[in-house]
Amino acid sequence: SHSINLAVIPGDGIGQEVVAQGLKVLAAVLPQDVKLETEEYDFGARRYHATGETLTDADLDSLKKHDAILLGAIGDPSVPSGVLERGFLLKLRFAFDHHVNLRPSKLLPGVATPLAGQPEIDFVVVREGTEGPYTGNGGTIRKGTPHEVATEVSVNTAFGVERVVRDAFARAQARPRKKLTLVHKNNVLTFAGHLWTDTFHKVAQEYPEVTTDYLHVDAATIFLVTDPARFDVIVTDNLFGDIITDLAAAVSGGIGVAASGNINPSREFPSMFEPVHGSAPDIAGQGKADPTATVLSVALLLRHLGYEAEAARVEKAVEADLTERGATVRTTDEIGDALAARVAS
Amino acid sequence: SHSINLAVIPGDGIGQEVVAQGLKVLAAVLPQDVKLETEEYDFGARRYHATGETLTDADLDSLKKHDAILLGAIGDPSVPSGVLERGFLLKLRFAFDHHVNLRPSKLLPGVATPLAGQPEIDFVVVREGTEGPYTGNGGTIRKGTPHEVATEVSVNTAFGVERVVRDAFARAQARPRKKLTLVHKNNVLTFAGHLWTDTFHKVAQEYPEVTTDYLHVDAATIFLVTDPARFDVIVTDNLFGDIITDLAAAVSGGIGVAASGNINPSREFPSMFEPVHGSAPDIAGQGKADPTATVLSVALLLRHLGYEAEAARVEKAVEADLTERGATVRTTDEIGDALAARVAS
Ligand SMILES: CC(C)[C@H](C(=O)O)[C@@H](O)C(=O)O
Ligand SMILES: CC(C)[C@H](C(=O)O)[C@@H](O)C(=O)O
Repeated sequence: SHSINLAVIPGDGIGQEVVAQGLKVLAAVLPQDVKLETEEYDFGARRYHATGETLTDADLDSLKKHDAILLGAIGDPSVPSGVLERGFLLKLRFAFDHHVNLRPSKLLPGVATPLAGQPEIDFVVVREGTEGPYTGNGGTIRKGTPHEVATEVSVNTAFGVERVVRDAFARAQARPRKKLTLVHKNNVLTFAGHLWTDTFHKVAQEYPEVTTDYLHVDAATIFLVTDPARFDVIVTDNLFGDIITDLAAAVSGGIGVAASGNINPSREFPSMFEPVHGSAPDIAGQGKADPTATVLSVALLLRHLGYEAEAARVEKAVEADLTERGATVRTTDEIGDALAARVAS
Repeated sequence: SHSINLAVIPGDGIGQEVVAQGLKVLAAVLPQDVKLETEEYDFGARRYHATGETLTDADLDSLKKHDAILLGAIGDPSVPSGVLERGFLLKLRFAFDHHVNLRPSKLLPGVATPLAGQPEIDFVVVREGTEGPYTGNGGTIRKGTPHEVATEVSVNTAFGVERVVRDAFARAQARPRKKLTLVHKNNVLTFAGHLWTDTFHKVAQEYPEVTTDYLHVDAATIFLVTDPARFDVIVTDNLFGDIITDLAAAVSGGIGVAASGNINPSREFPSMFEPVHGSAPDIAGQGKADPTATVLSVALLLRHLGYEAEAARVEKAVEADLTERGATVRTTDEIGDALAARVAS
């Protein structure tokens, strides 16, 4: 289609600032004949405090009509932990069946990393997005008493595991190294572990060119710091994916440059793109936030909508900017301007 | 008491080699008048293949009579994933109620770390050892079909959480920095998260001198590589503890030097001490394994049994050995001899 109808959710804290830069770069990179329409939605702490609402059925109906969603960040210390996460972020991922949570990690030359020796890092994590311990199953009895019992149920289905494993194999097949690592904890979580491992081996037979291996999640965290070059594509469950992608972001340039896509490959519902970082209320409104993660999320959005050349242009612009930025301190706006200028030229 | 009656479980792979060094150092450090009795148990892959047994009720009855247990490593690729883990390691932790899983991390000067800039690392993780997603609760329906559903239930009780939180506060109180960080994922796992967070705040009131904070597990992995010096004592659940202690080991000298204690503070059952590393079958029998983690586990064992001065002597010996070892390649035996010589002198 020659138009993009985008839902924009700036959200809380630095969300507003970084999303503005993402939109700036998006407008700059799109061909003249592509009409960009945006509609802004006011979700997050402000709306919650004003109305008690996080995400209503009517909201979902409105969001559903867009081609994609760009999100800044949701979350504020004034809201009890869990309310916006479960009531907005996870609700949206589940409602729109965002089962492929895509999180690339690439360390560029010259970019700061806490690891010694500037290792090669270029992998992508395919995190399952709609199952596992994130379903909200579980409960509490005898709350607040010495006999309280609280449970969390990780739910894993053949349907849910297979589709994300398939997605990961297809991605591995399309990359030069063609390597896929399953990360789980199948020696302890044996029920879910069997399902993941069996599904992984079954689908592997359809991808004879893809080299596969398996790591327990604890061992995976070791390799992420001692030998991150070993990874090409990783597929893992929702919670393990949450944990290892923050670590992956930390070692490959920091949370300021980590992008993510909450993708529904069937396109039945719009996919959502967001930086991995949160709302960072401590630096909000000061022009200090790095919009790079949001701009890279825009690249994932473009690729998802079929604008491959534009996605690649945005990524190239970010790579050039990152390798050249050195020690210069720039404002959020200045970084956005620099990236917009690069993609336009 | 002036005798130690120790159960020794060398186990699989490098277990045999490293345990021998641990015993060597133990014998060298103990005062002349302390009688050391050891009984070796043949658990692990060999026993499983020969008899199909991993750990019987009779085994538990025998083990129960010892003052403590020293374990090398259990696990072999010839045994299906989960069989020895659930059938031996976890069964023992649960049977002997090893609810305090203690894992110290200390980076010594000159010791290799994947982190740039040789940061200061000196913290201890108190990992809950008998609850959470490790209980084995859960199950599978329609196994092997497209409609399979596999669940894992994390079980958390007020009793189980409070006792380990109390243990962690007491440890934090006894350390110079007196700082305790709760690691969980209370914004997503809200049922268990409430229990952990509420318990943490409740017990905190009894420890006004202890500074407290909270980190989501994903954020904790970031800080473990960007600012590990921020940690003093960490308390966390069984699975998060498993994950972050492997990462902690990786950044603070590697898995070759990471010790752990599976402790039952009530002393109702013997506690078990083991290196964090596994059986490493790829290097077994070659004299290449580093016994340092086992020797440091012996220090934890000594401290648990009340031999504080001897524990400190073992730790000092390891510190001296590590800072002075440089690039010399030594055999398992040579490292054990060097450590035994240091503690004896
Ligand atoms: C905010 C939280 C619900 C979320 C998650 O756990 O998925 C975040 O950590 C992420 O990784 O996107
Ligand atoms: C082997 C496995 C059962 C064990 C665990 O997950 O606790 C190990 O990883 C550990 O950390 O001691």
